[in-house]
Amino acid sequence: MAKTDILIIGGGPAGVTCALTARKNYPDKEIVLVRDREKSIIPCGIPYIFNRLNSAEDDILPDKILEDNDIKLLIQKAVEILIDNKKVRFDNGEEIEYEKLVLATGSEPVFIPIKGVDKKGVFVIKKDLNYLKELREAVLEARNIVIIGGGFIGVEVAEEISRIKGKNISIVERASHCLETNFDEEFTKVVEEKLKEKGVKLYTGKVVEEIEGRKKVEYVRLDTKEKLPCDLVLLSIGARPNIQLAKTAGIKVVERGGIWVDEYLRTNIGDIFAVGDCAQTKDFFTRKDVPIMLASTACHEARIAGSNLYKIQNLKENKGTLGAFSTSILGLGLGAAGMTEKIAKKEKFDYVVGKAKVVNRHPGKLPGAESIFIKLIFLAGSEGYLLGGEVMGPESIGETINIISLLIQQKMSAFDLQSLQISTHPLLTASPISYPLIVAAQDAIKKMRDRF
Amino acid sequence: MAKTDILIIGGGPAGVTCALTARKNYPDKEIVLVRDREKSIIPCGIPYIFNRLNSAEDDILPDKILEDNDIKLLIQKAVEILIDNKKVRFDNGEEIEYEKLVLATGSEPVFIPIKGVDKKGVFVIKKDLNYLKELREAVLEARNIVIIGGGFIGVEVAEEISRIKGKNISIVERASHCLETNFDEEFTKVVEEKLKEKGVKLYTGKVVEEIEGRKKVEYVRLDTKEKLPCDLVLLSIGARPNIQLAKTAGIKVVERGGIWVDEYLRTNIGDIFAVGDCAQTKDFFTRKDVPIMLASTACHEARIAGSNLYKIQNLKENKGTLGAFSTSILGLGLGAAGMTEKIAKKEKFDYVVGKAKVVNRHPGKLPGAESIFIKLIFLAGSEGYLLGGEVMGPESIGETINIISLLIQQKMSAFDLQSLQISTHPLLTASPISYPLIVAAQDAIKKMRDRF
Repeated sequence: MAKTDILIIGGGPAGVTCALTARKNYPDKEIVLVRDREKSIIPCGIPYIFNRLNSAEDDILPDKILEDNDIKLLIQKAVEILIDNKKVRFDNGEEIEYEKLVLATGSEPVFIPIKGVDKKGVFVIKKDLNYLKELREAVLEARNIVIIGGGFIGVEVAEEISRIKGKNISIVERASHCLETNFDEEFTKVVEEKLKEKGVKLYTGKVVEEIEGRKKVEYVRLDTKEKLPCDLVLLSIGARPNIQLAKTAGIKVVERGGIWVDEYLRTNIGDIFAVGDCAQTKDFFTRKDVPIMLASTACHEARIAGSNLYKIQNLKENKGTLGAFSTSILGLGLGAAGMTEKIAKKEKFDYVVGKAKVVNRHPGKLPGAESIFIKLIFLAGSEGYLLGGEVMGPESIGETINIISLLIQQKMSAFDLQSLQISTHPLLTASPISYPLIVAAQDAIKKMRDRF
Repeated sequence: MAKTDILIIGGGPAGVTCALTARKNYPDKEIVLVRDREKSIIPCGIPYIFNRLNSAEDDILPDKILEDNDIKLLIQKAVEILIDNKKVRFDNGEEIEYEKLVLATGSEPVFIPIKGVDKKGVFVIKKDLNYLKELREAVLEARNIVIIGGGFIGVEVAEEISRIKGKNISIVERASHCLETNFDEEFTKVVEEKLKEKGVKLYTGKVVEEIEGRKKVEYVRLDTKEKLPCDLVLLSIGARPNIQLAKTAGIKVVERGGIWVDEYLRTNIGDIFAVGDCAQTKDFFTRKDVPIMLASTACHEARIAGSNLYKIQNLKENKGTLGAFSTSILGLGLGAAGMTEKIAKKEKFDYVVGKAKVVNRHPGKLPGAESIFIKLIFLAGSEGYLLGGEVMGPESIGETINIISLLIQQKMSAFDLQSLQISTHPLLTASPISYPLIVAAQDAIKKMRDRF
């Protein structure tokens, strides 16, 4: 196999989705997917290997979907892209020539330069089966666990471990609230309350000064001089795009960011694309570079690239990333898309907030009734475009946030929402009278009127 | 109270929603809602009064929301509209003058003219508290129950009663499958299988010839000469709009249909609107008159009317009804919006079908994993607009169908769907690689390509 049509480097969600999309769009092309690990991991599933899954192996991304779609899998480490020859070289010396190359090299978790970070017992969330097996064992054995970073990964791991008896879990977060990047305070407070009820200790607005211990970790010392005992420290403070391969080849990268890409995920070099965590994302509203690394965003990019590899045939440009996001913490579903109120304020948008709190059953006496809270941010004034939304409630909010995401992508307004055709059912949704998206839109319209 | 600004006749979801919308849009207007019953019922909740709710009273639509929004409630029966004087007369002789009048008079279940339909023991689903209390008692006492009509109400009631021990339930349906109006066969078959497993007997493709019995119902005799023993017969074969008040006043009505309305739910008479079941709905794609009577549709119309009573200020015309619909049968959620394949064929649309079957968790080994099946109908050719969608799976499909409904309303295509930004989470949704709407769209795109 010295030559192929489409070569994809990376076997995570972006690489796989790009391969599958390319297969559907180019049935006659040969597609090769190369990855450097024997097994691929489902990144978003990692927090659940500690309890709800029985092993790290349960979180493997199956290769069957590749076989079924006639995509050749190669386990090799790519070490060089020879741009002029349109070839990729592997660490065993072999080379493959490509017509189209897609970089889906992903990201690596970052280690912060704090003292003691190199001690035994400090872990990160690495998408590597053997590493995760080791981490799982260590977590099950540990009693005192300190998680540094209260973003969604830190919080998801904390909730998962809190389901195991006898664990003393602490989260240290520099910001004033956990999940602060994704949600406004009405939401983060509820999550924090839930975590605390479950016994997780929260140290928000605090910074780690040192990880102490002889050889192994023993204490995490904060800037407040508090010392948290620990057998295990988990760093979940973010990830860095894997751009070395691209950079070495002379492909353009964004300063302190990922690989530069255009609207169709094309790099500055002909016939080379980049998708997923390794590619730089831009914000939907401001076009600023943003460090959003979500599997859903990665797959979105992969689909755009995968259908436009040979010629632009799917004229749906990448409008920038909304960062649509959902999670589930101790039975509470949470979703966010577009701007939070905090961001809208910071970015100087003139906005109005609409809120609704309703029940997901009608009548409310039906079994399974749970509360849904929704917050929508609209551009103030006559346009009234939806800028962002946050929602919390039962499992169904995982799809509610996709409605919000779609409304934003379609540049829909509070007035559009007011006249939305929706479907409701006593056992599935809120009542048609009080469908939360519409009630929140009407709340915002009222506030817009009150302004004049 | 001989005069008011906005007068709404009818206290169901349409009337209430119109009043609430009017209140938000016209904070200074006096709003009066008149209804002829002491208590209002949540129509979609009625099937659940037999088991999951403890009484018919549990399904009352609370009046508190009216009080909270400064909407005056009047319990009176409107008997005449005096168009020239802009007055409504009640059966106690009193009159109210209005600036704007909204008719939300709803619908009544139909009795078919079969022999024996007047016997004791024959019921319909009437939105009347006392009638429903009586029906509930009768259902709890009955052993053999025959439901005539296998539309969604018939099926929902059958499933609810099947949760009570010792009931022998039969459904007689003229069409070849239950739920045939809303779903294609891939879906109706699954529902029928579930009902049969639960012991419900199905007589599809069969017609009732007579309801036999001395005074009380004893047998339902079919055209096949089968005789189904019964203590109770429930007719659920449809409803008829309540148009008498409008008709008598000389307001235009559609032949064998509801009150004629324009895009903004205005009748042919100035300052008189009609919303909900009593107003004639038109199909989204064909503009044909369709007998769709759903609370969600009614509320949609009520919001358009309620925000445009004095002047058109919400330029979102009523594009015609999609009939977005969802239900839940024995734990299986089902949703449909727009055209089924059957309808697309019948109405001579050139279409392509895309399908996907995925799991609502990733990895699939996570607890709560259930299968989602989705079927999307797209206009064939380069436009590729979404014409309709059907979905079945867990509770979250109640919102998935609202995404589908929105996609249709926005005239989005299979290509748009392919590049949709979505949010996914292991515990809430399918994986980002196999998000069902996108996979089904890609399946359709492939078929479109294969055509050329």
